[in-house]
Amino acid sequence: MSLAPAERLSGSVPPASAQEAKPSVRALAAPRLNRLRAACAEAGIRSFFARDTSNITWLTAFDGVFDDEDAHALLVTPHDAVLHTDSRYSEAARAAAADEGAIAVDDARVTHAAFVASAFGARHGEQLTAEAEAVVLGIEDSLTLGSYRALEAAFADAPARPQLRETSDFVLDLRAVKEPQEIARMKAARAITDAAFAHIVAFMRPGMTELAVQIELEDFMRRHGADGLAFPSIVATGANGASPHAIPGQTVLEAGQCVVLDFGARALGYCSDMTRTVFLGAPSPRMRDAYAAIRNANEQVEAALRPGVTGKAMHELAERALADGGFAGKMGHSLGHGVGIDIHEQPVLSPRNESALVAGNVVTVEPGVYLPGEFGMRLEDCGVITADGFEVFTQSTHDLVVL
Amino acid sequence: MSLAPAERLSGSVPPASAQEAKPSVRALAAPRLNRLRAACAEAGIRSFFARDTSNITWLTAFDGVFDDEDAHALLVTPHDAVLHTDSRYSEAARAAAADEGAIAVDDARVTHAAFVASAFGARHGEQLTAEAEAVVLGIEDSLTLGSYRALEAAFADAPARPQLRETSDFVLDLRAVKEPQEIARMKAARAITDAAFAHIVAFMRPGMTELAVQIELEDFMRRHGADGLAFPSIVATGANGASPHAIPGQTVLEAGQCVVLDFGARALGYCSDMTRTVFLGAPSPRMRDAYAAIRNANEQVEAALRPGVTGKAMHELAERALADGGFAGKMGHSLGHGVGIDIHEQPVLSPRNESALVAGNVVTVEPGVYLPGEFGMRLEDCGVITADGFEVFTQSTHDLVVL
Repeated sequence: MSLAPAERLSGSVPPASAQEAKPSVRALAAPRLNRLRAACAEAGIRSFFARDTSNITWLTAFDGVFDDEDAHALLVTPHDAVLHTDSRYSEAARAAAADEGAIAVDDARVTHAAFVASAFGARHGEQLTAEAEAVVLGIEDSLTLGSYRALEAAFADAPARPQLRETSDFVLDLRAVKEPQEIARMKAARAITDAAFAHIVAFMRPGMTELAVQIELEDFMRRHGADGLAFPSIVATGANGASPHAIPGQTVLEAGQCVVLDFGARALGYCSDMTRTVFLGAPSPRMRDAYAAIRNANEQVEAALRPGVTGKAMHELAERALADGGFAGKMGHSLGHGVGIDIHEQPVLSPRNESALVAGNVVTVEPGVYLPGEFGMRLEDCGVITADGFEVFTQSTHDLVVL
Repeated sequence: MSLAPAERLSGSVPPASAQEAKPSVRALAAPRLNRLRAACAEAGIRSFFARDTSNITWLTAFDGVFDDEDAHALLVTPHDAVLHTDSRYSEAARAAAADEGAIAVDDARVTHAAFVASAFGARHGEQLTAEAEAVVLGIEDSLTLGSYRALEAAFADAPARPQLRETSDFVLDLRAVKEPQEIARMKAARAITDAAFAHIVAFMRPGMTELAVQIELEDFMRRHGADGLAFPSIVATGANGASPHAIPGQTVLEAGQCVVLDFGARALGYCSDMTRTVFLGAPSPRMRDAYAAIRNANEQVEAALRPGVTGKAMHELAERALADGGFAGKMGHSLGHGVGIDIHEQPVLSPRNESALVAGNVVTVEPGVYLPGEFGMRLEDCGVITADGFEVFTQSTHDLVVL
């Protein structure tokens, strides 16, 4: 089914649920900056220098300012926070900052390294050298090596220079526990994704290319409230489904195949993520067995998720369920990952994560079975760890969908 | 105008011109790897370790394997080249490598750092320590600091360890001179963008939101052969146009305003990029003056571009033309940038670039005037430096477009 032009365009306005979920920005940044300051104090870090655009987006709570260019830096000290950006963004940033109240905007035409060296000098330049050098400035190890060398060089010439403390996932760890307003935004993104699935199931049929299905799916999301895509959608039919990151192409959907659809919307700055596998005609017994195995793995994990369990335990639970279904060792990827502003966040549900999950973590649960040359399938939901369990955002059915 | 469903879908197959532009991959990777090897030899680098996905895409010439995840590493030695990837990509990578012939694929479940340390050990482990330690391994300074530390740690434990040489834009500099087949792909992307402009001019009218125009524009590109977008499109009306990186929103297009449309398609892995400013009803005298100034700047530069001129000289020429038109100091950004696999490549047309341009450089020419609170406008083409001038790809008119 293809929507008539008028109906299609009606979706270009975000649904009411998404608009209601949009809070005033004023209440958001100050507590986030204070969470960062508290984490810094605990780690012996005085000030923090963020370059990751998603971290900066979260810390500032600015809406509609940042795009996908890594063109910004944010210095957070115990007393203030300054965004360094360039003239392309400064008007929008100043408008957001005026609404927000806790952040200054600086668009001086200098490098980010020169900006932070100068800002540091302004705050600590009159201290004795030894005192200034005892100050610890936290940086992200997701910074490029070139940016790091530029920082070293800028401080080498500066009157006051701090110790640089390289941190991993420092802000990302804070972002792993979502606030209620973030969950509301993710549910708005979820609603778009579920609606897109209902639409694409009615639309797709044998004879179409994967690419035609992908384009229709993505266009539907954009016209029904998505700011953008959470990631390039996957539409993989037949043996293509055995590549978990297959890129949709000119392969034609054929009767008898199953099709993996993995897609997500970005709404109000937050991502959704879901995968369904649908069948073009009655599935073979082997496909039925594989689907039963991934569904069982998905549902066992979703029943077991709660604060205190580890990502590793959940991954192993899924692997056991797949093995019980006759598909041992056929997943090949981690069971799930955190989702938020970015499509891949903390925590991960993988053998590497031995930390306990906590309430507020938003994760995917996406067991899959991949049989090269035959087919692949995956069943993915997204949801949030609650005080005593797991609230699944995704509403689309787990039952076999046969077209 | 909105296209009927059948017409819209016909665009999901790339146009014939784009398909004709797609060469066999076999002929591409070997010469690129050899260009890298020659550059390494000149710089005293023995082997090169690439992590940037666009660099890897270019060096391997693999089509349809890589997405936007930075999940890969490529080791290029004087004698071989090995792609290290993970199970999500390995099937597609092996298929591409089999077609290609010059590159091996390794999907060992180890970190990229462990992979390169092990590969280095396999090649140099039996040399005397001093000999192995004299070997220089080139790395990219676009690597994250965390990945760099992981490399250091992996080599610290390895039997043979090289000197790590940090390079800036080493592969990007090679990519700055485009091959004929790359130019053919960029022209295919260009054709989609020009067609999208013709479509959107017929579609847009006062009363629509920026967002509705953006969605229609992007959907048209996807349905007419684009693999994806080169970047999130800009549709900025009235005073929003004064922010060069405005994000399209619920602002409604109103008569009397001008609208900046900045957009690009990605086709066969390559980007196009164009900006046009259109007028909703007769422009005011001040708007006419500003448009005349940016058009004059654009056309003076396009007439002057040729091998031997510098990016700095071209930027200054544009600034002078804008000043002559009465808009001195109103641009605020660089005149242009290279385009290719990435939307921002080498060389740049900016005061920072004092190097001579050479034939094969593909650059944008995008003078703009931004008057906060009033309006903004920009006129951008993309083209290639030829043996004796500049071939403009963009075909859309420079004349005033009044709706």
